[in-house]
Amino acid sequence: MIGMENFTFFSPTYFAFGKGQEKDTGMYVKRFGGSRVLIHYGGGSVIRSGLLDRVKRSLDAEGISYVELGGVQPNPRSGLVYQGIELCRKEKVDFVLAVGGGSAIDSAKAIAAGTVYEGDFWDYYQGKPVDQALPIGTVLTIAAAGSEGSPDSVITKEEGMLKRGATGEALRPAFSILNPELTQTLPPYQTAAGITDIMAHLLERYFTNTKDVETTDRVIEGLLMSMIHEAPKVIADPNDYQARANIMWAGMLAHNNCCGVGREQDWASHNIEHEISAVSDCAHGAGLAVVFPAWMRYTMHHNVMRSAQLANRVWGCPMDFADPEATAKAGIEAFRGFLKSIGMPGTLAELGASAEDIPHMAHSACYGNGGKGFVGNYVTLNEEAVTEIYKLML
Amino acid sequence: MIGMENFTFFSPTYFAFGKGQEKDTGMYVKRFGGSRVLIHYGGGSVIRSGLLDRVKRSLDAEGISYVELGGVQPNPRSGLVYQGIELCRKEKVDFVLAVGGGSAIDSAKAIAAGTVYEGDFWDYYQGKPVDQALPIGTVLTIAAAGSEGSPDSVITKEEGMLKRGATGEALRPAFSILNPELTQTLPPYQTAAGITDIMAHLLERYFTNTKDVETTDRVIEGLLMSMIHEAPKVIADPNDYQARANIMWAGMLAHNNCCGVGREQDWASHNIEHEISAVSDCAHGAGLAVVFPAWMRYTMHHNVMRSAQLANRVWGCPMDFADPEATAKAGIEAFRGFLKSIGMPGTLAELGASAEDIPHMAHSACYGNGGKGFVGNYVTLNEEAVTEIYKLML
Repeated sequence: MIGMENFTFFSPTYFAFGKGQEKDTGMYVKRFGGSRVLIHYGGGSVIRSGLLDRVKRSLDAEGISYVELGGVQPNPRSGLVYQGIELCRKEKVDFVLAVGGGSAIDSAKAIAAGTVYEGDFWDYYQGKPVDQALPIGTVLTIAAAGSEGSPDSVITKEEGMLKRGATGEALRPAFSILNPELTQTLPPYQTAAGITDIMAHLLERYFTNTKDVETTDRVIEGLLMSMIHEAPKVIADPNDYQARANIMWAGMLAHNNCCGVGREQDWASHNIEHEISAVSDCAHGAGLAVVFPAWMRYTMHHNVMRSAQLANRVWGCPMDFADPEATAKAGIEAFRGFLKSIGMPGTLAELGASAEDIPHMAHSACYGNGGKGFVGNYVTLNEEAVTEIYKLML
Repeated sequence: MIGMENFTFFSPTYFAFGKGQEKDTGMYVKRFGGSRVLIHYGGGSVIRSGLLDRVKRSLDAEGISYVELGGVQPNPRSGLVYQGIELCRKEKVDFVLAVGGGSAIDSAKAIAAGTVYEGDFWDYYQGKPVDQALPIGTVLTIAAAGSEGSPDSVITKEEGMLKRGATGEALRPAFSILNPELTQTLPPYQTAAGITDIMAHLLERYFTNTKDVETTDRVIEGLLMSMIHEAPKVIADPNDYQARANIMWAGMLAHNNCCGVGREQDWASHNIEHEISAVSDCAHGAGLAVVFPAWMRYTMHHNVMRSAQLANRVWGCPMDFADPEATAKAGIEAFRGFLKSIGMPGTLAELGASAEDIPHMAHSACYGNGGKGFVGNYVTLNEEAVTEIYKLML
């Protein structure tokens, strides 16, 4: 990687950010061409909080009709996607509206693409670029996945529990409503897991072999420092609107790729985490809290100065010019300490996995989901290397 | 300003970034609906460099016809805009393509809006929101103004030399081609003026009374640090592609407002600089190099800790906990030293203005262009205050 690579960047999502913005959902659906909507959501929290009712009233006020499909689970499943596609076709839906977090949005994206595709929607999750979909809108309730501004969707197919991603510009939402108030009811553990997910999206981009990427390095570092500053505030006071707001906007910037362009990205840690979720059903962000520091320890020697740069610039560790590795290590320990301080786990056991799961997880990380025996780009890891990384999590 | 304000953010421009991207101009014009194009540009440099020919060949290859209008000047004028509108109507142009820097782009935006408006295009520059325009594309040759990703345009009306801005989502380019190679022929002075303009766009957003804006603060600080890192490299070696690339992407992020959302912004320095340009015809960025440090000195006491934060985080000045003002001052001196090191001026005299111009400039800054006697939001400055700031530039 000699230096900054050619790229294209296209992020046409309309973001409406702030208090009470969900009252305009109907207006935005109309603006972006919707007249018959599928409202897609997860469990009861959006019902209990009254959010779903507010969204419906907003659609009613614009004379927009709708059908509903709830029941999206974390790690959203293909079965519900097939149901949604059938419903959209039967009801002649022309707009898919997700109300919830990353799972509801990713499931909505799959439905939006599948409805207008004559083949099996799963084709898109086996590598076919998504070039067409119904327009999508989102009312976000969790700052974490970044799906509200990304062209990506991850779905798990029940047969074989294959977890795969699709991507394509057609999957960028037409609009996303980001009201930080809606995240204030999240329990601290889920809030912390969301923050960890946001930081992981930044770190997957940070660890790169591409040289001379100071501009995107600095933006990533800035967003990481913002998370370090805001996280303790929101853990101490879940109703801290300002901290919620800073985290929510950072979550979008962390994953719409404005800070990942022109540089190789890694993504091994996400693969390694997926296997833990599959075994233990842990929250994705909590899994990443265990995986990322272990991955950083294992790969540190690949480029000690990059790790030291992160430690010094983001974690404020003094640069040890005689021993940069000491600085790199101090940064990893600072990250671990931070994650612990916001209530995140540090070991496989805390996630509900054990040493016995490692052989299966390591194999599946490298060969499952169409893998060719390797994960990661910053450092290419084979099954043996992934095994060692899992062992660091014991 | 209690904290982060509600906002909307919509940046649908398609960016094609990197070496040789201008060869795809025709493809992008077609993708965004153009079949008959006005190519709008400035002086001879885009002709001499062969860029204009490459762009035309790219349009030819797609079977797209075009007419041309060159002659855009720095501080683009209304006269050429009227010519462009007439030409577009006569030739039934459906797409306006700017090839050049901020001036060519701003002029193209005015023409694109004026062509489809039955009234006088100048209405938009007197406050009417721009809700309609022909689609616009850009092939950028200078990293500075950020107009390639912004919804803004600034035009000078010859009668009375009124310099005013229009804004509206219709003015966001449909696509912008950012090839850092195209900026390599820029002389060092213009390169440095462009970098100063980018930093000024960041600082106009940084100085705010809005509390709790850590996420956007950190992104702004990161982009400033990136400029400080890359500027000396590109001044030392104009052909440093990687430095040019980092600066070019930062120039877009600095002004598409992803780091300015939800916070009050200042913009006094831009107003104060406009008057110097009007008197001396200096480069906008060079004028800002003189204005901004003087403005920072004058306003420092409004919020010493904000100035100290900038000094410490961006310029690396040690925090003087016993005397934060000393840190704030050290930051301003570091900024001045940096600007001098890249060849920017430090006084009005170097720009071609003098003490005798101050009364006129101060009055015009506050009352010209429809002003009500004040400039700025961070600190509201009247004519007397602006006079004092000009005196600091002597």
